[in-house]
Amino acid sequence: MSDQVINYLKENREHLLGKLSEFLSIPSISTDSSHNEDVLKAGNFVVDYLKEIGFNKVELQKTPGHPLVYGEWLEAEGAPTVLFYGHYDVQPADPLELWESDPFKAAIRNDKIFARGASDDKGQVFMNLAVFEAYMKTEGRLPINVKVCIEGEEEIGSKHLGEVLQQQKEKFQADFAVISDSGMVEAGQPTILYGLKGFTGLEFTVTGPNRDLHSGIYGGAAKNPAMALCHMIASLKNEEEQVTVPGFYDGVEELQEEERRLMNESPGENYTQTIGIPETTPEKGYTAKEHTMARPTLEINGMYSGYQGEGTKTIIPSTATAKITCRLVPGQDPDVIQQLMVDHLEKVAPKGVKLDIHRYPLSAKAYKMDPSHPLLKKASTSYSEAFGKEAVFVRLGGSIPVVELIDQLFQIPVVLLGFGTPEDNLHSPNESFPLESFDKGMEVLASYYRNAAQV
Amino acid sequence: MSDQVINYLKENREHLLGKLSEFLSIPSISTDSSHNEDVLKAGNFVVDYLKEIGFNKVELQKTPGHPLVYGEWLEAEGAPTVLFYGHYDVQPADPLELWESDPFKAAIRNDKIFARGASDDKGQVFMNLAVFEAYMKTEGRLPINVKVCIEGEEEIGSKHLGEVLQQQKEKFQADFAVISDSGMVEAGQPTILYGLKGFTGLEFTVTGPNRDLHSGIYGGAAKNPAMALCHMIASLKNEEEQVTVPGFYDGVEELQEEERRLMNESPGENYTQTIGIPETTPEKGYTAKEHTMARPTLEINGMYSGYQGEGTKTIIPSTATAKITCRLVPGQDPDVIQQLMVDHLEKVAPKGVKLDIHRYPLSAKAYKMDPSHPLLKKASTSYSEAFGKEAVFVRLGGSIPVVELIDQLFQIPVVLLGFGTPEDNLHSPNESFPLESFDKGMEVLASYYRNAAQV
Repeated sequence: MSDQVINYLKENREHLLGKLSEFLSIPSISTDSSHNEDVLKAGNFVVDYLKEIGFNKVELQKTPGHPLVYGEWLEAEGAPTVLFYGHYDVQPADPLELWESDPFKAAIRNDKIFARGASDDKGQVFMNLAVFEAYMKTEGRLPINVKVCIEGEEEIGSKHLGEVLQQQKEKFQADFAVISDSGMVEAGQPTILYGLKGFTGLEFTVTGPNRDLHSGIYGGAAKNPAMALCHMIASLKNEEEQVTVPGFYDGVEELQEEERRLMNESPGENYTQTIGIPETTPEKGYTAKEHTMARPTLEINGMYSGYQGEGTKTIIPSTATAKITCRLVPGQDPDVIQQLMVDHLEKVAPKGVKLDIHRYPLSAKAYKMDPSHPLLKKASTSYSEAFGKEAVFVRLGGSIPVVELIDQLFQIPVVLLGFGTPEDNLHSPNESFPLESFDKGMEVLASYYRNAAQV
Repeated sequence: MSDQVINYLKENREHLLGKLSEFLSIPSISTDSSHNEDVLKAGNFVVDYLKEIGFNKVELQKTPGHPLVYGEWLEAEGAPTVLFYGHYDVQPADPLELWESDPFKAAIRNDKIFARGASDDKGQVFMNLAVFEAYMKTEGRLPINVKVCIEGEEEIGSKHLGEVLQQQKEKFQADFAVISDSGMVEAGQPTILYGLKGFTGLEFTVTGPNRDLHSGIYGGAAKNPAMALCHMIASLKNEEEQVTVPGFYDGVEELQEEERRLMNESPGENYTQTIGIPETTPEKGYTAKEHTMARPTLEINGMYSGYQGEGTKTIIPSTATAKITCRLVPGQDPDVIQQLMVDHLEKVAPKGVKLDIHRYPLSAKAYKMDPSHPLLKKASTSYSEAFGKEAVFVRLGGSIPVVELIDQLFQIPVVLLGFGTPEDNLHSPNESFPLESFDKGMEVLASYYRNAAQV
């Protein structure tokens, strides 16, 4: 390991944190079209940084949606090529009133950086770029050939990424990929993620009367769409957290005792402390660790109908809407699952209302890598060196659709080098990222890019 | 019947419509505290009008909420005293984008007046006052002693009315009461309403995690409050529209065949045309007419949880809320029903979430008057004369809590002289009131106040 590179990162820490703050200050919310200019601005920030580092070919590639940044440095003769993927877009910050500091003005307190995107994913993208900078500034070169792909649509399902990669397959082809968009099981605990869940979803609207009605005059004649929606949703999952959509579990492989043991022995968070729930409620027959890591889920992400203001309004609402997404495991095909949900909803929709289903276009299959792969062993070593602790191997409930995309398209291993923690408040108010992860994570990356060049 | 009075109303029609428009232009939305000044303004409008008519004692009575207008004219020696009740507050106008004209700028088209409150209840209050004006301007006196009580809190459950009436029982005491805050079964069809439903309700919030969570990381560990809420709501009513809260139907008297026949023979609306529903969905074993008129209901008025914006946000929401109201029939006590709902919700609330219930303070018992009462016979005659058509006798699903209040407090009959129609869009966008009801309704009232003086 080159002390030079590590020293550079240490000596330039303040400068790097300042530059990261600048990146975090751009509200690049990809789902909200009123922020299109900000998304573009964040893309250009990445372009400028890559040029500054010394990447040879840096492009802001247009897509029908938000642009994607490509960059390459391919002068490490004889070394393999890594494709580094990340995203510069972020989730919405609402509800704003719950933030303790401006979501788009990075604030450091309690040894953490607070900002939307601090962990997911601007902070972790930035760490990789900073490590590339450190190599170039100290050794004048990178230890491995690097292709960089940083997109602006991850939070809206990477709408155009597949198309872009498909069309320029040769350009983006690499020997393996690295993604830093995940976390560790707890702060300071090196974690090798060898499995991720897949993803699918839809939203549906139940329409009853053509307007909100007086509940006294029409109650008893018109079906209440909110009540219809609740009955339909209640038919998707029972109170034992088992999804009751017919066929949902078809093809899901039963968890082996050995994997159950590994999962249950891995360190976990104290949910009462971290998220304030009185108790966990996993699927019947599974522990919370087993369910979050390796069993599929079906969640209501949002729901609305009728009057939401102060006081009462005695109406039968005209419509009711629910947004639903599923996290899938190996054996489940996202398109099949989506179709099963559509079929089920159409079947259970009651008389007296109209059902409109909008299938979310984004989807992903679950991903699993062999935990004994040399690229993962090297990762484990780099983590252990930096954090002074053995790495644990786990699967996670989150979905990174691009992992499956890269896997399918390029047929290469995808190594997940994540440094987030369960306290990061991803997608929530007060998102944060520990400075320890920032510092040690860059050491891991500096070491890993050099070690992986030997595989 | 005095031609003078009717002639006055005809000759001054344009003037009266202009004055009504002025009344309707005040956005006196009692549930929204940002409209407090407007509610006060509408109260003062009524005060000024009563003084102008020649009422002897006109007061804007303060309450801890919105004020109440009292006025009296008690110079009809030997005649009975009527208490005329109405309300000058209105429902919110949202969703504003669905209105074809400004809800607070009366517009006449297709022989209807369009404005929030045109039917419920400013328009109908105004008609009574206009009739009093016509008597005073032509005959110099009213045919009957009149006490007027126009409140500003009907749409928020008449919060302080009971207190006011209780404290000044002597002052408000009368021989019978008249309320014009209801409608006819169809436009032009005189309708004697001899029964109303009672009312109770509550809202509840299910809280899971202390913030919105990443659905991938926490799905399988944390109970989803929106899903919990749907299961709880689905347990309140089955898909055959039977309320499944234990004890809900206790004490409800079974509908007699004769009353069923009368109800089913009464003219009804074509719901497909009026509210655009494919079919009615009444309680199993009852027709839509029977259910709306004489069977209790339980409706979701509003519901919300999690992300409601554009696109997807893959969260487990922190909370989910539902607003629920019931319409009750004779035999059901609103406080008992509310308690049954609370008990049931507490029982079915699943593990892993916290339940907070807010009991709505407003409530009312159902009301039924003997359809052969002389005051109703006189009403029937007045309607028939003005509309040229026999009156039908029906019960209605709506609740007018003040009816029960007056009944209980003063032990007097409450006569409902309503002129609205099913097309009025009460509580909905594009509320309207037919000019035919405005014109003929005032003839009914002019005739009725004279006829009722003889009872």
